[in-house]
Amino acid sequence: MAQNIYDNDQFFAGYATLARSQKGLEGAAEWPTLQTLLPPMQGLRVVDLGCGYGWFCRWAREQGAAAVLGLDLSEKMLAHAAQTTADPAITYRRADLEHLTLPRAAFDLAYSSLALHYLENLAPLLATLHRALVPGGAFVFSVEHPLYTAPSSPAFTTTPEGRRTWPLDRYLEEGPRTTNWFAPGVVKQHRTIATYVTALLAAGFTLTALDEWGPSPEQVAATPAWAGERDRPPFLLAAARRS
Amino acid sequence: MAQNIYDNDQFFAGYATLARSQKGLEGAAEWPTLQTLLPPMQGLRVVDLGCGYGWFCRWAREQGAAAVLGLDLSEKMLAHAAQTTADPAITYRRADLEHLTLPRAAFDLAYSSLALHYLENLAPLLATLHRALVPGGAFVFSVEHPLYTAPSSPAFTTTPEGRRTWPLDRYLEEGPRTTNWFAPGVVKQHRTIATYVTALLAAGFTLTALDEWGPSPEQVAATPAWAGERDRPPFLLAAARRS
Repeated sequence: MAQNIYDNDQFFAGYATLARSQKGLEGAAEWPTLQTLLPPMQGLRVVDLGCGYGWFCRWAREQGAAAVLGLDLSEKMLAHAAQTTADPAITYRRADLEHLTLPRAAFDLAYSSLALHYLENLAPLLATLHRALVPGGAFVFSVEHPLYTAPSSPAFTTTPEGRRTWPLDRYLEEGPRTTNWFAPGVVKQHRTIATYVTALLAAGFTLTALDEWGPSPEQVAATPAWAGERDRPPFLLAAARRS
Repeated sequence: MAQNIYDNDQFFAGYATLARSQKGLEGAAEWPTLQTLLPPMQGLRVVDLGCGYGWFCRWAREQGAAAVLGLDLSEKMLAHAAQTTADPAITYRRADLEHLTLPRAAFDLAYSSLALHYLENLAPLLATLHRALVPGGAFVFSVEHPLYTAPSSPAFTTTPEGRRTWPLDRYLEEGPRTTNWFAPGVVKQHRTIATYVTALLAAGFTLTALDEWGPSPEQVAATPAWAGERDRPPFLLAAARRS
């Protein structure tokens, strides 16, 4: 079972300060790209894996989704989502994604933003999603980029020549990585791009898109602090179709 | 057009010293994995893109391939391949892979080992391959891993704490990288994993396998000098099917 760090008071308070927490989807720099991977939402039955505050669930309904099921491990997140949602077609439910059950062929779209890198095992969830999606259904997700999770010391360094570099090591050593991010001892699971893709294919999905997201040169010009994100992309986005 | 570095005398002489040059496929550490991505060769019509000394062409015939076309830009490589091949079902031909023409639906398998990272543009070749393969035909290839090609200074460094790291930068900055490898001024084209995958999908291929190859822990135990290859994998392997 994944660590339930979002119910840690210190973490929850820190996470609440992020632009993506305060502004929702528009506060997430990768959202415009992730959005291009999504099918038209009109009439879709949607499940959101790791729904957090419920920003995506509400957006999906605004775009015409028929019904949305938001799942999260965090009681704090679910409570906040419920308080800010007034829509009988959105259901929030507490769930451990590694031991999830869903009805068969009940969804047209499965979506997950920055949640799967908390899971120790992807295969059970992917098998569940494959059964829960209708044939032709889509699975669209983002995770922290494996280059972000891999290193022993995940912080940019400067070489003696003054060059900013990302000190990569342990890329092929998959497994837990513990960092201090809003709270000490946050555990994420590092896996390679190939492992994500192979897991999708093994579960019977067809890969339809893969994106190693970083800010555009124009975004870096507007926000110079993002420059390093082009040296080491922060997010991996993918879309797959249930065959 | 890709740089024809293999016809440089100094480069050719240096490349000839590699285990993969002297021992062939068995001298290439990634070959056992690449081999698992290949279909059974019996009866197949095969094209090898960047055939070099012709090791794979001869292996394919030994495994029962019906006919093999080996393509390379290097006259030196082709001359060496021809000298060491006595098989009327193997044809070697000089070709610039960025301006390749092949007959329609004439091949069951396209194969390429460590050649595509020399090409400035992948799309024309992928379109050619899609037309040249029969429906259901396979495309299996390896390239230098994008983590290998990306950095400004592609060499392991040691941190003040004594940790070996790969100084990653410029991962999202695609384009030429010039290094000194057997000869000064060797030009390779850096592109991301997502760009390789997206190009395949855009050309109409279905991705069937992706592998970020590095030596196994057992191989590192046998050859300790390879340890860094698990920090930063050297090769990207992929298999796709013509839809």
